[in-house]
Amino acid sequence: MKELVERIKKDGQVLGDGVLKVDSFVTHQVDAELMEKIGERFAEVFADQGITKVVTIEASGIAPALYAAQALKVPMIFARKAKSLTMAEELLTTSVYSFTKQVTSQISISKKFLSEGDTVLIIDDFLANGQAAKGLVELCQQAGATVSGIGILIEKSFQDGRALLEEMDLRVVSLARIASLENKTVEFLEEDA
Amino acid sequence: MKELVERIKKDGQVLGDGVLKVDSFVTHQVDAELMEKIGERFAEVFADQGITKVVTIEASGIAPALYAAQALKVPMIFARKAKSLTMAEELLTTSVYSFTKQVTSQISISKKFLSEGDTVLIIDDFLANGQAAKGLVELCQQAGATVSGIGILIEKSFQDGRALLEEMDLRVVSLARIASLENKTVEFLEEDA
Repeated sequence: MKELVERIKKDGQVLGDGVLKVDSFVTHQVDAELMEKIGERFAEVFADQGITKVVTIEASGIAPALYAAQALKVPMIFARKAKSLTMAEELLTTSVYSFTKQVTSQISISKKFLSEGDTVLIIDDFLANGQAAKGLVELCQQAGATVSGIGILIEKSFQDGRALLEEMDLRVVSLARIASLENKTVEFLEEDA
Repeated sequence: MKELVERIKKDGQVLGDGVLKVDSFVTHQVDAELMEKIGERFAEVFADQGITKVVTIEASGIAPALYAAQALKVPMIFARKAKSLTMAEELLTTSVYSFTKQVTSQISISKKFLSEGDTVLIIDDFLANGQAAKGLVELCQQAGATVSGIGILIEKSFQDGRALLEEMDLRVVSLARIASLENKTVEFLEEDA
């Protein structure tokens, strides 16, 4: 997506260690207009897939997932990273290992919101090692739901997340694909949509 | 706001201990259309206040804050509950005590996103004891920014959050005000907008 790629070129910051910081428009301060365009793009790409739910994980995935859900006229669900007091009922739960934080955490979705009849579009802001997306896929599988595809804002194509998901026969659509962050410079591959 | 009140009557669940669960449309599964109407309502109420930033806290505040920011044509910032790897720079930070979880946690916003010139609208999903909203106000004050008001989806008017904020000379606008959750029944006060 040209607008996202241009925005990364303009406002993304490359730190050491393969870290791309987009906290001025995605992960901390959020540009609602850009998120709406991104959500609408995902909705276009998956328009004929019979999507019934858009699923993401708190917190940075919420904005693009929300606009995608709105454009597709379906509910959005965000998986929680910790059990909350009011989630005492039955949960779909799995473990996600974060290479960045080097911790394993639980993510959960209430069973009542996903079922066999659902066709799910998963949305997340980053795809690196693919662990978060894989966790979301596992929650959908536990519910017996079908995952129609995975929409990603920024794919770190030099890490193995995309391969991991494609080996699971999942369709990955990334709006920006980054070949390299070496020498503090962002090199792009051609994006999927 | 009539639509929010009606939705709470229809889909809200009262658990014991003064807990109102709205996880089918606000806190876990999210109704984007309703959130957009809520965001637009806040934007109308604060239209002439010269708002430059909408501030909320992850995760349930993000959806309504995003639509309010979009309608006001300003950026949205969500305070983070834990420091992330890519937030090494200078932070505005304060402590928030959660009566629900009985823990004190740190919330942070990057200094670079709030400054003296900013006029802030704070948005959150619930107002109970007011600790989260007070924490967000403190972050704005640390930055020297002006807080123009606090927009709340659901106020538990039988708790003291509103009084706490009004004693700080802050304007509170709640779209649903709950007088009581006794006998597992939601009793409403007249809402602010």
